Amino acid sequence: MSIQKPSIPKGTRDFGPAVVARRNYIFGVIRRTFELFGYAPLETPTLENLSVLTGKYGDEGDQLLFKVLNSGDFLKDVAPDDIAEGTRKVLPKIAEKGLRYDLTVPFARYVVMNRGTLTFPFKRYQIQPVWRADRPQRGRYREFYQCDADVVGTDSLLCEAEIVLMMCEVLNGIGLTDFTIKINHRGVLRNIYQALGSEGKESDLFVAIDKLDKIGREGVEKELAERGFSTQASAYLFELLATSGSYGEKLEKLDAAFQKADLPSETEGSDGSAYKGLRDLREVQNYLTSFGFTQFDKLEFDPTLARGLSYYTGCIFEIKINNVKIGSVSGGGRYDNLTGAFGLAGVSGVGFSFGVDRLYDCLEELNLFPPNAATTTRCLVVNFDEEAGRSVLPVLRQLRAAGIPSELYHTPDKLVKQFKYADQKGVPYVLLQGSEERAQNLFKLKNMSTGHEQLLALDDVLSKLTQ
Amino acid sequence: MSIQKPSIPKGTRDFGPAVVARRNYIFGVIRRTFELFGYAPLETPTLENLSVLTGKYGDEGDQLLFKVLNSGDFLKDVAPDDIAEGTRKVLPKIAEKGLRYDLTVPFARYVVMNRGTLTFPFKRYQIQPVWRADRPQRGRYREFYQCDADVVGTDSLLCEAEIVLMMCEVLNGIGLTDFTIKINHRGVLRNIYQALGSEGKESDLFVAIDKLDKIGREGVEKELAERGFSTQASAYLFELLATSGSYGEKLEKLDAAFQKADLPSETEGSDGSAYKGLRDLREVQNYLTSFGFTQFDKLEFDPTLARGLSYYTGCIFEIKINNVKIGSVSGGGRYDNLTGAFGLAGVSGVGFSFGVDRLYDCLEELNLFPPNAATTTRCLVVNFDEEAGRSVLPVLRQLRAAGIPSELYHTPDKLVKQFKYADQKGVPYVLLQGSEERAQNLFKLKNMSTGHEQLLALDDVLSKLTQ
Repeated sequence: MSIQKPSIPKGTRDFGPAVVARRNYIFGVIRRTFELFGYAPLETPTLENLSVLTGKYGDEGDQLLFKVLNSGDFLKDVAPDDIAEGTRKVLPKIAEKGLRYDLTVPFARYVVMNRGTLTFPFKRYQIQPVWRADRPQRGRYREFYQCDADVVGTDSLLCEAEIVLMMCEVLNGIGLTDFTIKINHRGVLRNIYQALGSEGKESDLFVAIDKLDKIGREGVEKELAERGFSTQASAYLFELLATSGSYGEKLEKLDAAFQKADLPSETEGSDGSAYKGLRDLREVQNYLTSFGFTQFDKLEFDPTLARGLSYYTGCIFEIKINNVKIGSVSGGGRYDNLTGAFGLAGVSGVGFSFGVDRLYDCLEELNLFPPNAATTTRCLVVNFDEEAGRSVLPVLRQLRAAGIPSELYHTPDKLVKQFKYADQKGVPYVLLQGSEERAQNLFKLKNMSTGHEQLLALDDVLSKLTQ
Repeated sequence: MSIQKPSIPKGTRDFGPAVVARRNYIFGVIRRTFELFGYAPLETPTLENLSVLTGKYGDEGDQLLFKVLNSGDFLKDVAPDDIAEGTRKVLPKIAEKGLRYDLTVPFARYVVMNRGTLTFPFKRYQIQPVWRADRPQRGRYREFYQCDADVVGTDSLLCEAEIVLMMCEVLNGIGLTDFTIKINHRGVLRNIYQALGSEGKESDLFVAIDKLDKIGREGVEKELAERGFSTQASAYLFELLATSGSYGEKLEKLDAAFQKADLPSETEGSDGSAYKGLRDLREVQNYLTSFGFTQFDKLEFDPTLARGLSYYTGCIFEIKINNVKIGSVSGGGRYDNLTGAFGLAGVSGVGFSFGVDRLYDCLEELNLFPPNAATTTRCLVVNFDEEAGRSVLPVLRQLRAAGIPSELYHTPDKLVKQFKYADQKGVPYVLLQGSEERAQNLFKLKNMSTGHEQLLALDDVLSKLTQ
């Protein structure tokens, strides 16, 4: 076994103690919020059959799946001639498993496999890592956590309203208060497409709109022209998208525009809008009002929000943190056929997801991590000499019995070295009992950040450290 | 995209809400214990370079590593002729990464990569899944969690004593009280080998002893004979291993036997045993006594404990649950050269690990999971009709603000259906406000397990549900 300089794969990370503690702080707030709203935890395997994963994320996704070699003689079905035919021929013969790519497809698989025993509506949350063979770059990793909550088996818009509430609860919970929740509806996008005279391809329109943030109006116009939309349609699009005002005002303006464009009414006798997208968005607003929701200034109806294409069919969401330059920290939406690929049709659901890496970066940039988010020893007991080190062990036991993470310095050593250890580890308190203190049956407790020392009885030490 | 019947890979598992909650209960006790003793969390990537993993777990281990295909054109360096030469030739050309096989090697890699910034002794715990391409069978999975705690950079036997304390703390914490912590020392095994006249190979002796539980005395004798040990040596071995009595008595008896066998003394002027193994075990006992440890009846010095061969050099541990038929639920030991393979020599450490799947099985068999270990909605609010469903939303908000996981039934429906939903999900309370209760500004709270109903004001509902 030769000696080697070790490394970790590109796009992966080690998380040391301080970072784990801070990540767990974020996970904790998310988990508590999901549970408060009745979502229950699910965990699926890291390894999934490629038959489950392939074809669910588009061609690009298939490329980005990490594939796992079959164990044993993985070449047993491969002929030399197969090599010339390339990976498409060889892959199915040597790999039948892959790494989880997101939490949505495994969730759909789980629901279908367990449909006989699950209680619907089924509300689950899932906080697990996923893997993508993307080119690693700043802020983009090959292994990263997703935090998803989904409910399937109901089309009640109460779920959408509660997603808005959960988003607010999590962000306020971790101190990120300057945010905007953008909401739109696939039906609204479809109506916009219809209002434009159904030129070009519907999906091309959504893709172009989605890029507005990145390439600006001019860029979108150019792209639309290339994709077969007339200048007139393009101009009308921007008139629609420029609709301004509050959430409710925008709904009304778009409704008027759709009526003016003479779009076919989607409902009979509804007391809301004649268009399902607008009606759903109004309903979400009504639910939030009934809840006593007070943060409507943070909720923006954004008709330019498209969120890719994949499986969304109803409301779609995205969260922007306004005081940090970073992409969206959360997104989601309603889908009507998530489980269809696995043979279970007609199950409507809605879900959303937090990106913990981005939330972490936001908290770090804004200095919002609570000081106690770093889990470490709270009290280091000084080890004066062999005998004193032993005599203080019952004290160590009592500290721990009181729930105070504590340790004795591992060996008798110079005081300066023991203090340095506490300092480097960020241990907030050091407890000493030299011969003088022992004679009095007292302890010296030193606060490492202030340097303040107190002479205390053990009971007082315990109550001070459990504060 | 054709419709398929989905499945998960052999040896992997989905964990539904009730199981996740119970597993988290166990993880929680383990994590709190590790932190109480000053161990801090570390997380390493799932993907490790194969150069880091290969050669660390023996030939069998190399076979059991899950290897991940390089992304992109993984065949680009493979010639058709390579296929005939087999996996050994092809593997390095198509896979450079693998899945974490245990938590120890990644820990060693982390320590070496970060030695410049870590504070030693470095105490870390790690709770993460590992993957092994083992043949799946009852109780053996291809993906399972390990819970490790290790300290490196000190040879203080205080660490070994604290491992015994942590083992007791965790097992008592989850209610498993009928257990035996077996402890031995590699030095004792070496001394036994010397006492036998150093016949055969040392490693063969340990392997044979390790099987005593499984194949009995006769089997071990047969195996020793095959491996070149004389009948006399074999008989003497069993005389040594039959040493009985308390922890301290066994130490004394073995000490006498080693002296009688005229083994070379390993120390000069020590006041303990002349043999390092026995001396270390005595020292662990002394530390425990100083701690005020009272569970010596659960600590057994077992000279037949060998724990494989790999990297252990000092004390070794194993835990047996006495009232459940199951393998050891925890094990560990001291190693002197864990980081040597990565170029950092002379770092002594000691660690141990819990197997959460076995602990889970024990708790289930003994019915020891606390009833509230299943995380779910605590209160379901009944949805009478459209209007009542909306008017109760502020109540739902207050329940959640009080920290009570709650949900409104997703849609107005028959009462029996809503109660069935609560029942199937194991929701303990259902809250109703029909027109009668609303007129009185009161609520009916039904305890689902007793059937008992109470008419309460909202404040009383909140205080009852937060009890």
